[in-house]
Amino acid sequence: MSHPALIETLLGELRKFPGVGRRGAERMAYDLLSAPTERRRALIRALEEVDSTIAVCKRCGYFRANDVCLPECDRRDQSVLLVVEGPLDVVAIENAGGFRGLYHVLGGHLSPLKGIGPEDLRLEGLFERLDVEPIRELILATSPSVEGDATALYIAGEAEREGLSITRLARGMPMGGSLEFSDAGTLRQALEGRRALNS
Amino acid sequence: MSHPALIETLLGELRKFPGVGRRGAERMAYDLLSAPTERRRALIRALEEVDSTIAVCKRCGYFRANDVCLPECDRRDQSVLLVVEGPLDVVAIENAGGFRGLYHVLGGHLSPLKGIGPEDLRLEGLFERLDVEPIRELILATSPSVEGDATALYIAGEAEREGLSITRLARGMPMGGSLEFSDAGTLRQALEGRRALNS
Repeated sequence: MSHPALIETLLGELRKFPGVGRRGAERMAYDLLSAPTERRRALIRALEEVDSTIAVCKRCGYFRANDVCLPECDRRDQSVLLVVEGPLDVVAIENAGGFRGLYHVLGGHLSPLKGIGPEDLRLEGLFERLDVEPIRELILATSPSVEGDATALYIAGEAEREGLSITRLARGMPMGGSLEFSDAGTLRQALEGRRALNS
Repeated sequence: MSHPALIETLLGELRKFPGVGRRGAERMAYDLLSAPTERRRALIRALEEVDSTIAVCKRCGYFRANDVCLPECDRRDQSVLLVVEGPLDVVAIENAGGFRGLYHVLGGHLSPLKGIGPEDLRLEGLFERLDVEPIRELILATSPSVEGDATALYIAGEAEREGLSITRLARGMPMGGSLEFSDAGTLRQALEGRRALNS
């Protein structure tokens, strides 16, 4: 007995989530099937509300709810623009606190191996913003990986504007990290970027 | 910025899935939000169809679709009843092939530590079936764990009926397993249950 067609359809949808494989989708589906109908209705309601309310912001690439940009861009420092790969990066930076500038979500990073080129990212909109908005600092906060660095370098090359400073996040030892278990790349960058304690 | 209330509601529903934590729910939610609306609609449709079509079968504890029992109990060998903990166990046994009898899904196992007693499982229905249906063999296929064994022993004690044989699945080495990495319990049971090769 394979799964009935109806359950297969649900399994197919659940498997589209990142990190959910065949077994994970089965566990999720059967958990849902065994639950009281109220739980399925609540999930459907949450999905419907999100679907009808949330949209990707054409300007920053993060989300708008009922057509209001969620990071409330208008109330932020309009002179600093921070570029990240995905929307969860925005949440992480907001939770870290201390940043009051604008965001720009690329929607990924350059990856020639996966066939992801500049035209697949929200890059045209980024360069347009640099032309039109009064941005004085562009912070490239792509992920600290080979692809993230390549993406940052590509943007830095194309983003040159009169009076615009381009920066990236500091590299070094993470809080709570141990030297013993650090990878060579992190240690090398921590050493290169060493800072004077006495001034 | 915490997540907007709407997204929090969705996160709450996603976290109800087994094995999905805060981070997993966030990844799932933002993946859904970034996807085209068609994907959210497809998931909603699959959930709605499943919700309106699939119900737990009052007799066997597995699922009925449009009021037809999915293992098609009526066409099966009515003299053998196999007891499992959950619906995914039914799928596993069907995929293994070779079993043509009836199923009974308990909905879990006894676990005094978690406060799960006999009244929380589909046990009353099981004993009723033994009284009413022409069952001659009861196969206890609860999971090979302390709780699963305790559940099987409890059932064996209560299920005694004239002319009913009660069995459980064989214990031993799994196919493809290695002696070197087997746990002591499995090895002990494989040794105790050893079978003659010459007859």
